[in-house]
Amino acid sequence: MKISILNGPNLNLLGTREPSIYGHQTLSDIEAMVAAHAPGHEIEFFQTNREGELVDAIQGAAREADALILNAAAYTHTSIAIHDSLKAASLPKVEVHLSNPAAREAFRHHSYVSPVVDVVIAGAGPVGYCLAVDAVLALAERRAAATENA
Amino acid sequence: MKISILNGPNLNLLGTREPSIYGHQTLSDIEAMVAAHAPGHEIEFFQTNREGELVDAIQGAAREADALILNAAAYTHTSIAIHDSLKAASLPKVEVHLSNPAAREAFRHHSYVSPVVDVVIAGAGPVGYCLAVDAVLALAERRAAATENA
Amino acid sequence: MKISILNGPNLNLLGTREPSIYGHQTLSDIEAMVAAHAPGHEIEFFQTNREGELVDAIQGAAREADALILNAAAYTHTSIAIHDSLKAASLPKVEVHLSNPAAREAFRHHSYVSPVVDVVIAGAGPVGYCLAVDAVLALAERRAAATENA
Amino acid sequence: MKISILNGPNLNLLGTREPSIYGHQTLSDIEAMVAAHAPGHEIEFFQTNREGELVDAIQGAAREADALILNAAAYTHTSIAIHDSLKAASLPKVEVHLSNPAAREAFRHHSYVSPVVDVVIAGAGPVGYCLAVDAVLALAERRAAATENA
Amino acid sequence: MKISILNGPNLNLLGTREPSIYGHQTLSDIEAMVAAHAPGHEIEFFQTNREGELVDAIQGAAREADALILNAAAYTHTSIAIHDSLKAASLPKVEVHLSNPAAREAFRHHSYVSPVVDVVIAGAGPVGYCLAVDAVLALAERRAAATENA
Amino acid sequence: MKISILNGPNLNLLGTREPSIYGHQTLSDIEAMVAAHAPGHEIEFFQTNREGELVDAIQGAAREADALILNAAAYTHTSIAIHDSLKAASLPKVEVHLSNPAAREAFRHHSYVSPVVDVVIAGAGPVGYCLAVDAVLALAERRAAATENA
Amino acid sequence: MKISILNGPNLNLLGTREPSIYGHQTLSDIEAMVAAHAPGHEIEFFQTNREGELVDAIQGAAREADALILNAAAYTHTSIAIHDSLKAASLPKVEVHLSNPAAREAFRHHSYVSPVVDVVIAGAGPVGYCLAVDAVLALAERRAAATENA
Amino acid sequence: MKISILNGPNLNLLGTREPSIYGHQTLSDIEAMVAAHAPGHEIEFFQTNREGELVDAIQGAAREADALILNAAAYTHTSIAIHDSLKAASLPKVEVHLSNPAAREAFRHHSYVSPVVDVVIAGAGPVGYCLAVDAVLALAERRAAATENA
Amino acid sequence: MKISILNGPNLNLLGTREPSIYGHQTLSDIEAMVAAHAPGHEIEFFQTNREGELVDAIQGAAREADALILNAAAYTHTSIAIHDSLKAASLPKVEVHLSNPAAREAFRHHSYVSPVVDVVIAGAGPVGYCLAVDAVLALAERRAAATENA
Amino acid sequence: MKISILNGPNLNLLGTREPSIYGHQTLSDIEAMVAAHAPGHEIEFFQTNREGELVDAIQGAAREADALILNAAAYTHTSIAIHDSLKAASLPKVEVHLSNPAAREAFRHHSYVSPVVDVVIAGAGPVGYCLAVDAVLALAERRAAATENA
Amino acid sequence: MKISILNGPNLNLLGTREPSIYGHQTLSDIEAMVAAHAPGHEIEFFQTNREGELVDAIQGAAREADALILNAAAYTHTSIAIHDSLKAASLPKVEVHLSNPAAREAFRHHSYVSPVVDVVIAGAGPVGYCLAVDAVLALAERRAAATENA
Amino acid sequence: MKISILNGPNLNLLGTREPSIYGHQTLSDIEAMVAAHAPGHEIEFFQTNREGELVDAIQGAAREADALILNAAAYTHTSIAIHDSLKAASLPKVEVHLSNPAAREAFRHHSYVSPVVDVVIAGAGPVGYCLAVDAVLALAERRAAATENA
Repeated sequence: MKISILNGPNLNLLGTREPSIYGHQTLSDIEAMVAAHAPGHEIEFFQTNREGELVDAIQGAAREADALILNAAAYTHTSIAIHDSLKAASLPKVEVHLSNPAAREAFRHHSYVSPVVDVVIAGAGPVGYCLAVDAVLALAERRAAATENA
Repeated sequence: MKISILNGPNLNLLGTREPSIYGHQTLSDIEAMVAAHAPGHEIEFFQTNREGELVDAIQGAAREADALILNAAAYTHTSIAIHDSLKAASLPKVEVHLSNPAAREAFRHHSYVSPVVDVVIAGAGPVGYCLAVDAVLALAERRAAATENA
Repeated sequence: MKISILNGPNLNLLGTREPSIYGHQTLSDIEAMVAAHAPGHEIEFFQTNREGELVDAIQGAAREADALILNAAAYTHTSIAIHDSLKAASLPKVEVHLSNPAAREAFRHHSYVSPVVDVVIAGAGPVGYCLAVDAVLALAERRAAATENA
Repeated sequence: MKISILNGPNLNLLGTREPSIYGHQTLSDIEAMVAAHAPGHEIEFFQTNREGELVDAIQGAAREADALILNAAAYTHTSIAIHDSLKAASLPKVEVHLSNPAAREAFRHHSYVSPVVDVVIAGAGPVGYCLAVDAVLALAERRAAATENA
Repeated sequence: MKISILNGPNLNLLGTREPSIYGHQTLSDIEAMVAAHAPGHEIEFFQTNREGELVDAIQGAAREADALILNAAAYTHTSIAIHDSLKAASLPKVEVHLSNPAAREAFRHHSYVSPVVDVVIAGAGPVGYCLAVDAVLALAERRAAATENA
Repeated sequence: MKISILNGPNLNLLGTREPSIYGHQTLSDIEAMVAAHAPGHEIEFFQTNREGELVDAIQGAAREADALILNAAAYTHTSIAIHDSLKAASLPKVEVHLSNPAAREAFRHHSYVSPVVDVVIAGAGPVGYCLAVDAVLALAERRAAATENA
Repeated sequence: MKISILNGPNLNLLGTREPSIYGHQTLSDIEAMVAAHAPGHEIEFFQTNREGELVDAIQGAAREADALILNAAAYTHTSIAIHDSLKAASLPKVEVHLSNPAAREAFRHHSYVSPVVDVVIAGAGPVGYCLAVDAVLALAERRAAATENA
Repeated sequence: MKISILNGPNLNLLGTREPSIYGHQTLSDIEAMVAAHAPGHEIEFFQTNREGELVDAIQGAAREADALILNAAAYTHTSIAIHDSLKAASLPKVEVHLSNPAAREAFRHHSYVSPVVDVVIAGAGPVGYCLAVDAVLALAERRAAATENA
Repeated sequence: MKISILNGPNLNLLGTREPSIYGHQTLSDIEAMVAAHAPGHEIEFFQTNREGELVDAIQGAAREADALILNAAAYTHTSIAIHDSLKAASLPKVEVHLSNPAAREAFRHHSYVSPVVDVVIAGAGPVGYCLAVDAVLALAERRAAATENA
Repeated sequence: MKISILNGPNLNLLGTREPSIYGHQTLSDIEAMVAAHAPGHEIEFFQTNREGELVDAIQGAAREADALILNAAAYTHTSIAIHDSLKAASLPKVEVHLSNPAAREAFRHHSYVSPVVDVVIAGAGPVGYCLAVDAVLALAERRAAATENA
Repeated sequence: MKISILNGPNLNLLGTREPSIYGHQTLSDIEAMVAAHAPGHEIEFFQTNREGELVDAIQGAAREADALILNAAAYTHTSIAIHDSLKAASLPKVEVHLSNPAAREAFRHHSYVSPVVDVVIAGAGPVGYCLAVDAVLALAERRAAATENA
Repeated sequence: MKISILNGPNLNLLGTREPSIYGHQTLSDIEAMVAAHAPGHEIEFFQTNREGELVDAIQGAAREADALILNAAAYTHTSIAIHDSLKAASLPKVEVHLSNPAAREAFRHHSYVSPVVDVVIAGAGPVGYCLAVDAVLALAERRAAATENA
């Protein structure tokens, strides 16, 4: 399976910024950890600070990947453009957040991503990406079973 | 590890109610699936339709279990009593929902549970309970490592 | 027909509390009045101050009764758990209130019960229970006719 | 008893519009059904699409009828003028709706009529008019008893 | 001067409805009182329960009268149509209310009339109409002076 | 094709009121312009200041015309009665406004008309009526094509 | 009759500030105009920029004057202290504003003064003070008549 | 005097949970302290995590006790059922909170209990229960004096 | 101990205004009652109608008194200046209200004082001042004990 | 005339995504249709998923084109940057939407584009682009006439 | 140039209150620092805890000073009276805050001062007063240049 | 010192757009003015219309510059991504606006930038950039002093 993992603004700072708080794992470290967690699958990591490039990447994943994992970071709360591109994508979709937005500022409590994905995973730190991959695999299996039965 | 899995109102109807929509898995089936998923661990399932009994059970888990998984169902959105009992419990805590509340009615968009748990998992169906167990194990490991380093 | 009539918190005080305002009829008096109004039917009255027991009772009625009449009193305005249990119950359902909530405090203006019942009757005093029974019988008749035609 | 039954905008379309949804009963059919339901009473049906004519009719009923049943349709949610005319009318008053506004769009959740009537009946379809007549008769009886005792 | 005094819904009930509260003065009595108060002027009273007729009358006054006094009653709080017709009328305009809306229900606290009139007078009872006439005369005088100076 | 063009409150003032702002075109001038724009079609213009008459006219158009163009003016923002009558009308429907309500007061930003029409055209001045006719013709063509293909 | 006329913050600037807009009349000029308007009565003018001194003055008027006219200016919209002192004062009370607050910024649309006075007069400019005196005299007359009849 | 002191959810955790923050006093310790503070009176302590049991207990106190002290904890902010049972209880009633809800999260700022008790005491810690007893005694005394004078 | 008791606007009217409602006790009577209640302590009473003088007095108490009791009356709901001066004062602080603001108008439900005091006491009438003194003494004792232990 | 037609996020998916719903017309097809509709004019189509590129393109059109047609898609509801760039552009501007946002989710009901364009056209599908071109031509004509008359 | 620098409630506590947080600089120290920063200009410092005195002082500065710098502290967020006095003052006006209100409690996020001053400077600590003086000088220079060019 | 000055959308239009309003200074002119104002420092100007590029630039400044000045223009009000990148940047940060957003439309009153910068300067026009540089230098000096003392 080809799984596209897209990351939004400021996630490129992981590991180097305040490591005592956010840990020492960089996004590359997480990528490696995820690859090790799902050995038989093709994992593609992408990060951008730009909303429009995330829209492009979601459209691209919808065309070429088998599943999509998205940590839209700050755009989670403001981007209807991302919402629309997710809505148009029919592959299995999982939203992931390192921290728990519900325990942070009020402006992080609403997500334009959640209503248009299958699964939401928040607060588990880097391991959340592995859980997201497991969720994606379970979703794919469920869909395959459903198709078989139809 | 002893993991307490608590379930709120109307979840006792799972499997028998509208199986074409909610699937044929009962809460017992999910319990068996979770037990099989985490063979070396003690899994305790509990379901109640009463807010106060969930508070009792959360307090009980805080005293006697190593980790807590909670699907508070409708009380997720209305119970400050559950919020307070979770806040007082220092064990690893994961919130789980079968469906994705963000994709349902507006009154399900706010959670009193989310701000006081470590991890939130929503929308993955029954398999979400297995992901929650994996999250709990990862949290416990992380805590153990942190304690060791301290 | 077996009709389950469920009553929520503080309705056990009827008749003994401020009779000059609320009248001298107790809940038992109303039960007798309703039984006399619908002689050929089995009427079951139940009262509880506890939200969870109302959820249990609604689930029970859904399994065993032919129709449900609910005066959820204060829980009308706060209980999503009751909302969910009603939503899962496919029998004819009528919401009844002795007084008219729209003419009282603002926090009584919203009902979690109304959107998931067939009929709402408010403000008619004890006689509202008889109107609710009549509504239930009319609903049952309409459903029977619909089934016959199908 | 003379009972005035007033109907607001678009109710003249009943029966001819989308009969598979709204049924085949026209407002005239309902009028006949109500007359049959309350044989000894004088039933007056009136329909208008105009807010001001409803105000006129409510004032007229307050002067000349013994009871008032009102389905204000869309004006239910917007008309303070109707609210004021009802407030000034001391006869027994019942609000009726064919469907259940609480289960429809948010702008139908507030009623300017409810706080100034005695009884509200919603969601029972055409039979709701018969229930409303029964409610009116019970209200009249209760008032008569109260007067006698005074 | 020709002064048009327009009155909205339910004001036709004045004097006959609850005279212990609203007084014994009918709208005709007020008309007579105002005529006596402003002997050299032509006073035209008009009352209607219909929003559209008030719009017509405001347009008419704008064409044919020298000043306008409006008690829009319930339409004060809901009618943008009246707002627009007042905005298009350049004659001196005074809003009058018998009672003080600010001391009544919240839905009477907003006025669509106030922002498009010159003067607002509320709470003075019938005598408010005389004050309104005085205001109209003062406004006319001020305008005449301004024109003279220009 | 028979196209009914309905106009709401205060639009009868067009052309004579503040011509430097609203232009010198009266509603009759616009009617003539539209007729010239769509020579082969029957164009019916109607204007009223009354909400209920607009409801009547919309019902009438639904019965007898092939398409409906509505400039509800102030009632756009307050009339659920008009909303309901449009919802019940299955012919092609276009909302038109001379000015752009989004650029005016906040109370003009919400429209009860927009959610129940096919097309909205605002801000184009009198020519907006011609665009609306073009839209109506395009809608009719699209429907005819769809019917043919079915 | 002794009439206390109290004026709030920035009204001391009248006449000297932007006379082309606010006119050339100072507060003293208005005082003289009012005195001339009500020759047989004792008129007391007071102005202060301080909320607490207005409270003092309202309490003083309640003890020593026969009627109170208040232009609380900016404190109209923010002062519950003034609200409370007016509520405790049983003499005839009139609120006056030179301009029409409903036609200004949103934060001027709510008045803490209006619900606790008898009459509100706004937008009439300096002449509003004369209207207020007339209102006060009418109120006093009405009270005297009521007392006589009691 | 018999004083019923009712305690809501999670108050059973007092003293054992985070004693450095909440102190070492358990609910039993507070009970003993209160008993010592009011030696001549019968003090009854009750704690439950369940909303419905609090309703039962309030009804019980209304029948059998002379005064009621209530710390409804989390239910303070969500329970209309408790509100209603307090409203129906005519004995002296005091609301008490260990901490100061106004200094905590926004969802703790509204109380359904406050509007239906005589006295509110918050933020005084365990000693607040003694102050509540003193308040109850003063209320009882005031009522006795009022009765005597009547 | 020196205890400063500060009273806000309109409290100087106590006892003389509507004694049937507010009782016959003046602020001086309350001062005497409090002095008798706490014989060994220096009690200083102060009343003002002015927000700024309350700020001055709170700053003064913070410098020179051992504890502060504040009934800010109407300024409770509007004064951030008082909030800030309390925040800067580290002595024991108690907020007191004669009546229960939660049972009055909505604009009295928010307090800028509550979040920055130790204890809130409301609804106990004049005796609330004595309870406040007791609270202050308990707070002082607790602080002394804490200091001793440190 | 040179007309710049700018299209926002996800509009590149037109025609290939769910053609049974959105039709088989791609953005290129629409471009061809528009070119055919306005033969003598230079039509420039541009699409981007990025907000900033739309801002660039609007600035570019303001410098080099004679008119601007904008379908900002999701950015319609969130972009003040686009609002500002439109405000700074003085050429004729038309907003177009394929579907009718007022009939979709609440977060699509507000437009930052509408207040700063001349004309809004929504819900007409691809033909809306042709109507927009017609509107642009009419606007240009009107401006030319106005300039000529000046 | 004569520059009036006005300071609101609790700023008299600067330097002596919690110096580890707010620094050791008193308002006098700041005054000296500002004087040294702008040697050729007359700097007048004023502080008061009273809203009305700030209004007086703003009016005074408008009459006698060349520029105004205002730190209204808590009154920033509540005083329309100050807003009005600033609006009436045509000299250059700068708002200054030691801390950054946007980073504090929500009730400090709105300013009645900002919309009626020329420049806002917040968060720079005592040096903000020097920046304010520089801003004032630049404003004065710009005005002089504008006047010269006119 | 190396100071990075970042400018958001539409600021590239400065000087050429409506110079009678915005002045004739282009962004380059401002850059030159700032360089002249702070001769010994390295000033870097950057402008972009794209949100993501501002995030990139803020991250870049955090790595390579000594201080940051940001005029985020329209993104000030909508960008949580910029908020997050500022929060992660520990260098001295100043927000600057040419005009005063508090005096403009309501949607410009909230800033996501203000809570995460040290200083806010608004309304001073181009000279605001010089004030921002002065603020930055003062902040750097204060930090240096603090470090020295630590």
